[in-house]
Order: sequence, then C-alpha cells, then structure tokens
Amino acid sequence: MIKIKILSIGKTKESWLDTAMGEYFKRLKGQVEFECQWAKSDEQLIQLVEKESSVICLDPAGKEMDSPEFSTFFEKKVEEGGARLTFVIGGAEGLPRSLKDKFSLLSLSRLTFTHQLIRLVLVEQIYRAFTLMKGIPYHK
Amino acid sequence: MIKIKILSIGKTKESWLDTAMGEYFKRLKGQVEFECQWAKSDEQLIQLVEKESSVICLDPAGKEMDSPEFSTFFEKKVEEGGARLTFVIGGAEGLPRSLKDKFSLLSLSRLTFTHQLIRLVLVEQIYRAFTLMKGIPYHK
Repeated sequence: MIKIKILSIGKTKESWLDTAMGEYFKRLKGQVEFECQWAKSDEQLIQLVEKESSVICLDPAGKEMDSPEFSTFFEKKVEEGGARLTFVIGGAEGLPRSLKDKFSLLSLSRLTFTHQLIRLVLVEQIYRAFTLMKGIPYHK
Repeated sequence: MIKIKILSIGKTKESWLDTAMGEYFKRLKGQVEFECQWAKSDEQLIQLVEKESSVICLDPAGKEMDSPEFSTFFEKKVEEGGARLTFVIGGAEGLPRSLKDKFSLLSLSRLTFTHQLIRLVLVEQIYRAFTLMKGIPYHK
C-alpha cells in the first residue's frame, strides 16, 4: 500500500472538489491510501512538512514534466520514500519561501491554478501515474 | 458581452464537473457568455469547428503560457475575434489531426489531463484571465 499525504493551507471549500477527489481516492482504494492535512497558516504548514521525510513541493516555477515523465518520477520517489510520499501545495499566495528553498519543486503547469483546484489536478495525475505504472487502462 | 464557445467530444460525465463549471459561469455572468457543445465524434467536432471564425485548439504539445501571458493572449484574441472566441478540446484520444494541422495550438500543461477535467481547467483560466484584464481581485 502506497501512502500519499497532501499538505496545503485552508480547508477544501467547494463540495464539488471533495466529491471529485473522493472519486479518485475510491478508484485507487486498496492500492493508494491518501491523507489530506489542511494547515491554517504558512507556519503550521512548515511544521507539518518538517515531520515528513519524502517531500515534493508544487510550484508553477518548478520542473515541468509530461504525464509519462511524471509517472516515472512518481514511481522512483515512491520507491525511495519506502512507499510514502508527501506533496505540498502552497496557499493562495504560493509556497512559503523556506519550503521553496529547501525542497525540489515540481510544476504541474506554467499556469497558476487556485490552490484548491490544484489539489484535484494533482490527485488526477497521481491516478494517471498509477495506471501507467501498473499498465491499467486509464478510466476515461 | 464576450461570447466563449467550448467544443469537445462527449458529454460532461461527472456531475461535480458540471457544478464546478457552473460556478465559474455564474461568477462571469453578465460579462462572459459561455456555450458548450459536445460532439459525438471527431467528424462532428470538425464540422462544428468549421462554422467558427476565431478558434484556439488545446493540445499538450501546443504553446505554453503562464497565467499573465494567457490573459494577454486571451484579451488579444477576444479583440481580434470581435468578442467571440472558440476553444476546442479533443476527445479521449486527443485532437483530430486535421485540426492540429490547421489551427494554432495552446497548451494548458505539458501533463495530459482527461478531456473532461481540462474543461474545468480551461474555464478557471478564462475566469483568471478575465480578473487580470479587468483588475478584479481573484475570488480565491
């Protein structure tokens, strides 16, 4: 079982977003266990990140990948992290500077998405990476 | 009033996606009028596109922009098109070759999104472009 943690700031506001993320969590049930933690401030986010060992921070200025590259990267990171991986999404104003400086940055798009929508985009890419890894046909 | 048409293949399957897109349509009400047309096949999509004059096709291999660049591009295209603009999203297998060859291609990410999720990502970027154009604070 792979354990993926998603850390960000602020609760998921929109119920459609919860529904959508829940749909992907359900599709990966038994193979990937997701845990979401929503901090109340940059300071709390930094504290939560400090507890983690295998961390990837999302930032529009980070390294860009296409989906097969992301899948390979994801597989390698999962292996290195002993089946544990933590993704960090900044708040409305982006990632705190100290996290930007400390961790390698991954970009899901050069476009800025809301820190809410990016949660869904990330989860969909994890699902896609997983189907590529396992050779499962993508559920369109 | 700006009229934006979104052409793609296949109905929007997920009700959360309809809800999410509806939320952005509502926020832009009175300023942007959206019309979505979902074709049943590549052939029908091509026929729908032929009726349009100002067309932008989305493709992961197209030109990438950040959000301010997209906003400038969007504003210019809306002006050129006489306040009308059509975005085309390919089906599960991507854009038909004839559309790829004929129109300029825009990429919202190097990652492949489902042709369903990309609808929402596009609408959110249009909303973001519009807030940048008008200097409205983005509703986070």
